Amino acid sequence: MKLHGYFRSSAAYRVRIALNLKGLAYEQAFVHLQKNIQLSADFAKLNPQQLVPALEDGDTLLTQSLAIMEYLEETRPEPALLPKDAAGRARVRALAMAVACEIHPLNNLRVLRYLVREMELSEEKKNQWYRHWVETGLQALEAMLVSDPRTGSFCHGDKPSMADICLVPQIANAKRFGCDLSACPTVMRINDHCLTVAAFANAAPERQPDAE
Amino acid sequence: MKLHGYFRSSAAYRVRIALNLKGLAYEQAFVHLQKNIQLSADFAKLNPQQLVPALEDGDTLLTQSLAIMEYLEETRPEPALLPKDAAGRARVRALAMAVACEIHPLNNLRVLRYLVREMELSEEKKNQWYRHWVETGLQALEAMLVSDPRTGSFCHGDKPSMADICLVPQIANAKRFGCDLSACPTVMRINDHCLTVAAFANAAPERQPDAE
Repeated sequence: MKLHGYFRSSAAYRVRIALNLKGLAYEQAFVHLQKNIQLSADFAKLNPQQLVPALEDGDTLLTQSLAIMEYLEETRPEPALLPKDAAGRARVRALAMAVACEIHPLNNLRVLRYLVREMELSEEKKNQWYRHWVETGLQALEAMLVSDPRTGSFCHGDKPSMADICLVPQIANAKRFGCDLSACPTVMRINDHCLTVAAFANAAPERQPDAE
Repeated sequence: MKLHGYFRSSAAYRVRIALNLKGLAYEQAFVHLQKNIQLSADFAKLNPQQLVPALEDGDTLLTQSLAIMEYLEETRPEPALLPKDAAGRARVRALAMAVACEIHPLNNLRVLRYLVREMELSEEKKNQWYRHWVETGLQALEAMLVSDPRTGSFCHGDKPSMADICLVPQIANAKRFGCDLSACPTVMRINDHCLTVAAFANAAPERQPDAE
């Protein structure tokens, strides 16, 4: 398999964790987002969305990190990234989407660029925007975790799942932007626990060959 | 089943279509987003994310529209909202997420409110923002559809799937905000075809009891 990603992309980071957890070997192709390589005609042929990650599995080309994780789960079921019961699976997916649909889309590179270049926001306002959505979103995630007895050492019980895979890259970004995480002790406890697992630790941006 | 939604929420609209396609009866509870009912303590107990939709299935409470659709697919498999093959399932999910993770999160009510109230954008700038992300996102969706022979009368072949379920509510919003859809003929052809199907047509915002 070949992963087209970027060390700092949280969506690529998710896929790296998933591949590591499943023990799957992959090579990496690096798409330098700051240099706009994702906007090149060559990359658009690979992924018309002009976003990373894209994963090649033989002749199958996959995009969208959550869709890639579901594909890996269906084609390489063990170890599982979702629980067995439908209600538990729905919970894990909802936790993952509380990050992937509510926080991350508001704060990725192209959105931050657009806020500054086209909406003419100051750097200060842009950072306020960033922190607002991260803090609001993580507080919602905290409430979801605290209110449910299925929360364990990981988001759902004592095995890592798609929810943890989305949580960890989001916290890395939150720290980079100086967000206030004091209202999210459960989220942070789980994040710290995940980072003791090699599959998570080895996927970290700073450990990638293209890290700057 | 009981769906907590709002006529104009596209995420609730998705779940209405999915329930209709599967022929499942449901009652509706109406959460008036403009009146901030989703921010009430009572609703927060139901969904700590303070977002619609939430679906009650007996004692199981479900949130996040895509997670709800996956749950319905697992518990009521027929008619299927995903194809059988892993590559096809990944494609449908990626198409759905091209809307649900790349377009819709940037344009929902709370984001538009924040842009005006906290980022102090003018109404004109806010509308520019809205149209930019809808048009950019739908053009990416168009490219994904046009470049793939699996596209049929629906997004994937000739049966409705999760991709169509995400597409139709997004187009309804795009039209409401006067977005330019001329670059997306395939998206529009599929949208128009979906709306000939009762499950889609009956889920439309204007047909809901809480429509204004």
